[in-house]
Amino acid sequence: MGVHLMTAISTVPGIREFHLPELPRLLPYAYHPKAAQIEIASNGWVREFLGECFPDEESLLVFLRQRNGIYGPITVPFAADDRARNIADWYQFVTVIDSFVSDRSALGASHDGARQVFAAIMADVDDADALTREFPYGRAARDLWLRISAGLAPAQVRRLVGSLEAFLRGCATEIESKLTDAIPDYETCMAVRQDSFGCDFLELFTEYAAGVDMTELRAEPEFAEIHTHSMRQMIIVNDLLSWRKEHADGDTMTAVRVLWQQEGLGLQDAINRLCALVEHHERAYIAVRDRVLAGPLGQREDVRAYLEGMDLLIGGSQEFEYLTPRYFGDGSVWDGTTSGWLDLTAPVARFRPAPSTASAETWEWK
Amino acid sequence: MGVHLMTAISTVPGIREFHLPELPRLLPYAYHPKAAQIEIASNGWVREFLGECFPDEESLLVFLRQRNGIYGPITVPFAADDRARNIADWYQFVTVIDSFVSDRSALGASHDGARQVFAAIMADVDDADALTREFPYGRAARDLWLRISAGLAPAQVRRLVGSLEAFLRGCATEIESKLTDAIPDYETCMAVRQDSFGCDFLELFTEYAAGVDMTELRAEPEFAEIHTHSMRQMIIVNDLLSWRKEHADGDTMTAVRVLWQQEGLGLQDAINRLCALVEHHERAYIAVRDRVLAGPLGQREDVRAYLEGMDLLIGGSQEFEYLTPRYFGDGSVWDGTTSGWLDLTAPVARFRPAPSTASAETWEWK
Repeated sequence: MGVHLMTAISTVPGIREFHLPELPRLLPYAYHPKAAQIEIASNGWVREFLGECFPDEESLLVFLRQRNGIYGPITVPFAADDRARNIADWYQFVTVIDSFVSDRSALGASHDGARQVFAAIMADVDDADALTREFPYGRAARDLWLRISAGLAPAQVRRLVGSLEAFLRGCATEIESKLTDAIPDYETCMAVRQDSFGCDFLELFTEYAAGVDMTELRAEPEFAEIHTHSMRQMIIVNDLLSWRKEHADGDTMTAVRVLWQQEGLGLQDAINRLCALVEHHERAYIAVRDRVLAGPLGQREDVRAYLEGMDLLIGGSQEFEYLTPRYFGDGSVWDGTTSGWLDLTAPVARFRPAPSTASAETWEWK
Repeated sequence: MGVHLMTAISTVPGIREFHLPELPRLLPYAYHPKAAQIEIASNGWVREFLGECFPDEESLLVFLRQRNGIYGPITVPFAADDRARNIADWYQFVTVIDSFVSDRSALGASHDGARQVFAAIMADVDDADALTREFPYGRAARDLWLRISAGLAPAQVRRLVGSLEAFLRGCATEIESKLTDAIPDYETCMAVRQDSFGCDFLELFTEYAAGVDMTELRAEPEFAEIHTHSMRQMIIVNDLLSWRKEHADGDTMTAVRVLWQQEGLGLQDAINRLCALVEHHERAYIAVRDRVLAGPLGQREDVRAYLEGMDLLIGGSQEFEYLTPRYFGDGSVWDGTTSGWLDLTAPVARFRPAPSTASAETWEWK
């Protein structure tokens, strides 16, 4: 798992845009029927529980304008209302953390400092007094744990705690990598992103939304394959659609930068290669899912519900990533387009049918 | 219907905030299950059909950030998807016009100029060639007319055209009133707002969403009562929740300004009086609706469907008005609060539990 030092991306001249082709989108997606209400209520929860993590009202509003509260309702569209709401709040919570991890004036300033905050969060999850204390991350984690664990089997509750730990571990590794400007190799990147993208709770919430427990089946080789391909598809789609933001933040732990700078591809070639990988993992996921559905496990109601939920998670996650101003710039509004030229430096971007002239002229440079 | 000249509101010193009490909200509201998707797709339609009405991309984005595309899905939550989408696009269309009517650098600059534009829109509705011409308002009106009239009875199609004409007439009257800074009396204001708030198409789309035709029944005295009370409730709620924006725009045709400046009430007294009027009209609407439902007309399926739709229109319109950054400032994000102190001058406002100290000190002034 080698990590090498590279010069900062901002020193690369000339490249201001890239072209995102249409991605395959072979899987279904849907919005929870109460998506809008859940997003609004969840924004109220963020203000109440995490408002003081933000330096001022405007920073909080920038976060709320990213519409992170709709990630839950898009990824668990058929969950009961209360579960969809709990999941929405959880994703807001981890996205607040992820935002400050990317911010060198906040959690991202110091690897040790962040590890201490993360340890305090983990301690508060288990502490009934956390709700009365002054530490907002801990209070929020405790509130979520109480609401969500009531709907989980004991083994799943342990996985919930483990999933938060894995996420925070991934965040800490990303901070370290970024502070040293170290760009990892592809497999290292995928391993860290598995944690920092929250794959463990993405899978667990797919069970929670469907009201099933896959704890035992997760060890089956076919389930491992399902998870590898689904999560890689989701991570790479995320790295493609979040590239504008990650580029601006100087993040190192993204597949785009790995292929571009570590493996020596031009930026557009790296994008194209990743699009091919998205299709590969999406089709591989569908193949193994269909194999499971056609076999003895496919007779089980809970397995079918879980796999249907997994389809919707993959499709919904991608839908959210086209939608969120988090990736297209504060103030952007999605109008449904999913392919085109994206400006890396404009404060607000959208998919355009053609590159700007200036960019086209420098485009031959790799 | 007297209209008197008053000094501009901006000359009134000291008042920076007002308190909005909880409104009764006795009627149900719901979001269309595809509210989010309809809003996104409708934003794409605005860009395609009306994008060139905006002076630049940023102005278009300010409009799209107001989330006007969700007014349809909130007010016709049980309509078929395609009808909800058509209604969403219509409301975006009339809100674009309403925005430029409030803008002295656009349609609001000249009463005659606006009347010419409005006449051209009405001509294009009836003209099959309008879709190929360069006049975006006319092309949009024609596109909407084609999509919506297919689902209406002939008498309803005539009402659709009439409703657009009434709306544009109301807009023209508002422009004239604003350019002369003339504040009307209460009944004049209500009569103009009946047009400019689009009451005729609000009622018609309630029929369209429910798939019924109330053209004949509208003449019944009880239906007239239903419409008077429902529309006055909606207009006054709108005037309360849009007061921040109308105040900033210097608009004259709003019940708040009428009561405050024309009838000599203090601002807070005017707000409180209007809140009482909201409750009065809401309860009066419910009483006459219940009378109709208990009588012979209440046996008719179509009447019941229409009145259920009317409930949801009133409740949904209010829900939207708490939600929209149009009224709370570009960049605001609703977190579900519906009462509190509202700042009239902050670029972005939200309901606060207490007034700011400065405002409290000057608050005694009327």
